[in-house]
Amino acid sequence: MLKEGTTRKVIAFDADDTLWHNEPYFRAMEQEFCDLVISHLPAKDAAKAVYDMQISNLKYYGYGVKSMVLSMIECAIKITSGKISHDKIERMIQMGQELLDKPVELIEDVAFVLEQLQQNYRLVLATKGDLLDQQRKLKNSNLEKYFHHIEVMSDKTENDYRRVIDHLDIDTSDFVMVGNSPKSDILPVLALGGHAFHVPYLTTWEHEKVDYVMEHDQLITVKKIKDVLEYL
Amino acid sequence: MLKEGTTRKVIAFDADDTLWHNEPYFRAMEQEFCDLVISHLPAKDAAKAVYDMQISNLKYYGYGVKSMVLSMIECAIKITSGKISHDKIERMIQMGQELLDKPVELIEDVAFVLEQLQQNYRLVLATKGDLLDQQRKLKNSNLEKYFHHIEVMSDKTENDYRRVIDHLDIDTSDFVMVGNSPKSDILPVLALGGHAFHVPYLTTWEHEKVDYVMEHDQLITVKKIKDVLEYL
Repeated sequence: MLKEGTTRKVIAFDADDTLWHNEPYFRAMEQEFCDLVISHLPAKDAAKAVYDMQISNLKYYGYGVKSMVLSMIECAIKITSGKISHDKIERMIQMGQELLDKPVELIEDVAFVLEQLQQNYRLVLATKGDLLDQQRKLKNSNLEKYFHHIEVMSDKTENDYRRVIDHLDIDTSDFVMVGNSPKSDILPVLALGGHAFHVPYLTTWEHEKVDYVMEHDQLITVKKIKDVLEYL
Repeated sequence: MLKEGTTRKVIAFDADDTLWHNEPYFRAMEQEFCDLVISHLPAKDAAKAVYDMQISNLKYYGYGVKSMVLSMIECAIKITSGKISHDKIERMIQMGQELLDKPVELIEDVAFVLEQLQQNYRLVLATKGDLLDQQRKLKNSNLEKYFHHIEVMSDKTENDYRRVIDHLDIDTSDFVMVGNSPKSDILPVLALGGHAFHVPYLTTWEHEKVDYVMEHDQLITVKKIKDVLEYL
């Protein structure tokens, strides 16, 4: 698929749920949110309400922990008609701070894969979410040394990738993306003419799901991140 | 100070309160926060409490509107011993959304200055704060066309500038920073060996203040941003 030995080629890695675990923490936060409002609304409806609130607030807040906490508070006040207790609002704030303070749990073999690939490629981290939080996680992960730099993107649309590739000053065909989200990591990159490795994570956030099988000449789907070494 | 005609040189502009007005909006939000809790605490004490809360939460949240709103809610619950009304908490969330939705008000002559400078220099936007919000403001400002790219930094310490300059792949002496905050825009850049223009804004956030006069061979202080054209 790609020739080795040239540093022109850039491999961009998604971070959350590609290098380290993330989605389960958000799902746990959502679960606790549902528990906090259970006397007002069944868990399933509460989960839908906070999801809808997050999506409707994306234009203001974007992605990340702070955005989630603000949407939880707004949603809790709304769905309880202002009857949620202050203790519970404080707990939501605390849940966010706990998550922002959590140690990073690497996905299996990630350090080994980066160690190998950095010998022949320029590696960048391409992630959406909160800059400070992503920098903190990168630092705590001890993976910083493998990356040339971080591209923190406010979203991961074709336009956003276009900007990253222009900024890297490379041909699109020299851009390889590795990630777990079809919608954010794979489809926009393929649409631009880049290459992609899809490494599915055990769970995917509703908002990131696509409901079809992806097939493309420039796409390789692997089971584990270590498997990309067979191709790169 | 600098030779013209070489695109190796990079001029980095701070955004908030250098290109467009920002600090007065935050002060207005703080003022309204104080009004909302006035039955519990004198305005002066409330302002101090929310400032202290923001500073103690910087490690979690960093800078920006979302961070301010989360700190206001946490602070309001704390200083009213849980007696703040839900309407008021909702109002704080709304204040944040209003600020995130506000049209950008450019500072006088900014577009003219960028138009002139982009003919001889590579211009970048170097800002701390919220990536999504800064991108939104840049887009709404119609200034996007003048900038090579945005460097959104989680903080503006020497280390952060070191990373930016390495990333730009230039000598430190080819890096010129233009900004209003001595602490964030000027001192760290001078310490690294770069050049700086200080363009004071009419008001400075407490956290950004320094209490001495800055003098340095590689620093020029000007009254208005247009004045930098006399030197560049």
